[in-house]
Amino acid sequence: MEKISFKNLSRDEALNLKAALEKEYADYVAQGLKLDMSRGKPAPNQLDMSEDLFTVLSKNSDVADVSPDVRNYGGMDGIPEMKALFAEMLGVKTTEVVVGGNASLTMMFDMVSRSVTHGVMGSTPWCKLPEVKFLCPVPGYDRHCGICECFGIKMIPIAMDENGPDMAEVKKYVENDASVKGIWCVPKYSNPSGITYSDDVVRAFAALNPAAEDFRIFWDNAYCVHDLYDESDKLLNILDECRKAGKEDMCYIFASTSKITFPGAGVAVMAMSEANIASNKKVLTYQMIGPDKINQLRHVRYFKNLDGIKAHMKKHAAIMAPKFDMVVDTLDAELSGLDIAKWTKPNGGYFISLDVVVGSAKRVHKLMAEAGVVMTGCGATFPYSNDPEDANLRIAPSYPTVEELAIASKLLCLCVKLAALENILG
Amino acid sequence: MEKISFKNLSRDEALNLKAALEKEYADYVAQGLKLDMSRGKPAPNQLDMSEDLFTVLSKNSDVADVSPDVRNYGGMDGIPEMKALFAEMLGVKTTEVVVGGNASLTMMFDMVSRSVTHGVMGSTPWCKLPEVKFLCPVPGYDRHCGICECFGIKMIPIAMDENGPDMAEVKKYVENDASVKGIWCVPKYSNPSGITYSDDVVRAFAALNPAAEDFRIFWDNAYCVHDLYDESDKLLNILDECRKAGKEDMCYIFASTSKITFPGAGVAVMAMSEANIASNKKVLTYQMIGPDKINQLRHVRYFKNLDGIKAHMKKHAAIMAPKFDMVVDTLDAELSGLDIAKWTKPNGGYFISLDVVVGSAKRVHKLMAEAGVVMTGCGATFPYSNDPEDANLRIAPSYPTVEELAIASKLLCLCVKLAALENILG
Repeated sequence: MEKISFKNLSRDEALNLKAALEKEYADYVAQGLKLDMSRGKPAPNQLDMSEDLFTVLSKNSDVADVSPDVRNYGGMDGIPEMKALFAEMLGVKTTEVVVGGNASLTMMFDMVSRSVTHGVMGSTPWCKLPEVKFLCPVPGYDRHCGICECFGIKMIPIAMDENGPDMAEVKKYVENDASVKGIWCVPKYSNPSGITYSDDVVRAFAALNPAAEDFRIFWDNAYCVHDLYDESDKLLNILDECRKAGKEDMCYIFASTSKITFPGAGVAVMAMSEANIASNKKVLTYQMIGPDKINQLRHVRYFKNLDGIKAHMKKHAAIMAPKFDMVVDTLDAELSGLDIAKWTKPNGGYFISLDVVVGSAKRVHKLMAEAGVVMTGCGATFPYSNDPEDANLRIAPSYPTVEELAIASKLLCLCVKLAALENILG
Repeated sequence: MEKISFKNLSRDEALNLKAALEKEYADYVAQGLKLDMSRGKPAPNQLDMSEDLFTVLSKNSDVADVSPDVRNYGGMDGIPEMKALFAEMLGVKTTEVVVGGNASLTMMFDMVSRSVTHGVMGSTPWCKLPEVKFLCPVPGYDRHCGICECFGIKMIPIAMDENGPDMAEVKKYVENDASVKGIWCVPKYSNPSGITYSDDVVRAFAALNPAAEDFRIFWDNAYCVHDLYDESDKLLNILDECRKAGKEDMCYIFASTSKITFPGAGVAVMAMSEANIASNKKVLTYQMIGPDKINQLRHVRYFKNLDGIKAHMKKHAAIMAPKFDMVVDTLDAELSGLDIAKWTKPNGGYFISLDVVVGSAKRVHKLMAEAGVVMTGCGATFPYSNDPEDANLRIAPSYPTVEELAIASKLLCLCVKLAALENILG
């Protein structure tokens, strides 16, 4: 097919092209595809890689040299060995680390919940305030928005570009509105755009002078070691930058091994200033005696150190990179020059973000579904599941095979074109 | 020593006895003991029994036949196999079970936290109410009181006898005060008294007509399978009884494998009516993607069924019963007939409750500590850590060896007598 901007198509050309594409589409539908590009789940062969985690602890004597006994009660904030490993991974001190259960999502939810019921370092509990607001860079991670929705926290969307959130907007809200208590960030290989916050953006975060004393940056560093290629993005350390600016209490960092070992049975972590930790522990001590310390020791013994994690992530990259390449290459080949779509080429993470013609994302989603390919729900990446422009689609290439992605990506491009033509033709 | 009620001692006899006991006590102090009877922790050899749990899943193919993949995301309320096992253990339907992480304490805390932030099945969130109260049978479990303290919930102590809480008192509060939203119960082998609620008490619970629509019985069945002897206590099923009374939504049941396999890495569960589950899931779905399903499958494969759990508990009993026997036999031999103490002889659980002369529990605790034996903090078994009579001590016999318990129990009896004499002599 000739590469001509859809803007320059005559009505007849557009009609002809649409008819041709509809025929092509019908052929796909006839194939009865059953593919899922909706969730950022590792593929089974990525999980297979961590098989030795099952047996790295295999008998009582394997845990005998660790004290206190990891099998018994205790250790509210994690075993020292796991704290050390996470501290190395996140570039913080071991005293700035709280190791949790299997999910950073739960740690983030609980952090908001604690703020709602108990406030933040002595501030008024959020449940006692008439209104609490969070800033949500868009497109973003649906489950961040979900936590706000759950607690009735008003969400304000903040535009993102290739450097991160629009910091002028962030500054305006954070410095002038004391009801703004937080912002959700996926600063590296952002979900879903795959971009990494620039140094200037990170420094602009650290330079914020919040109107609210209990304003916190929720820094979900979910993809901190999830590079796809040798050329990887570098992210400034937010805790360091905040500390330099005299505001070390302003950020919470979250991460986990969910997409390193097993999503269902990994280890989660949060990192923050010692003052924040002390404040959180006042409530944590009532909620738990200790997380699963055996699973922590498993992870420590399996990886040994950060180099062990990095070597493991290279194996993930070997599986993931060809999938990302397949999607991006197909988008490049099929859609570039047509002026109907924009997409990202991430160096890591789990997602590719695709912006289509305004008002056509839902249509693309529907066409895909009717041809048997599930994509992330439209709007899922926006507060209240509402993409005001109806333009963003999230592509999750990890779970299908490369062969499946070849088909699904081509179909996706076809649907984007079809929806664009429907839009143009009215 | 002659067995004569301390009430009948002359002043001189009391003084002579006290001097003799002080000499004996000094000998103990000189030994420099270092023993801990403070926490209900399984002993290392109890943990050793579950060694095969480490390797019951040892390779990818061991999990391959379970769908969806236990290694990946998902399964918010647990894997079907673990739900079935817990349903059997608790005598409920699989649809009435939510399997959690490693701690029932966290499930209880989170349940209260959800009620505070979101209310109960549509009721006003507790944080919006001027006052919330819980009933706390005393002596009880310190961490139950801790949850109330954490959320500023006012605690009302309810007296316990060998049949359970004083149900006339419970009824009076629950049926007349709409700010009473809950009651904490350890209905079987109660912590710390070791008694089991009688059938009449359980039925009286089910017969309650609460003033508050969002009143709930927090039924912490922590010791449901934790028998010490062939002769075991039987507990009526609270969910069945509530259902018969047309009030199946009135109770939440909690349990875990913490004292079956590993306290630090077991599996927790809550059971309740399907309507309660549906209501809780509305919040849970924002808090978590799924608990550690690999650890659940480990437990299922290890135990296979309830008979597997029961067989395993017999092995625990073989270790625990001699410890309970040692303490109770020593108390019987040393203190019976003296009219200065009362103690329980539990058929299961982890604790023995000892009531000493009013106003002397703290003194006994101090004497024990100064001789090198740590006991549970005085008052810990009461709301706000305040035992108004200063009379109750909790004995946790699980962690020390039988030999250590022989010494510690004898010392305890000595201290009880000494403190009683000090009290009598003024």
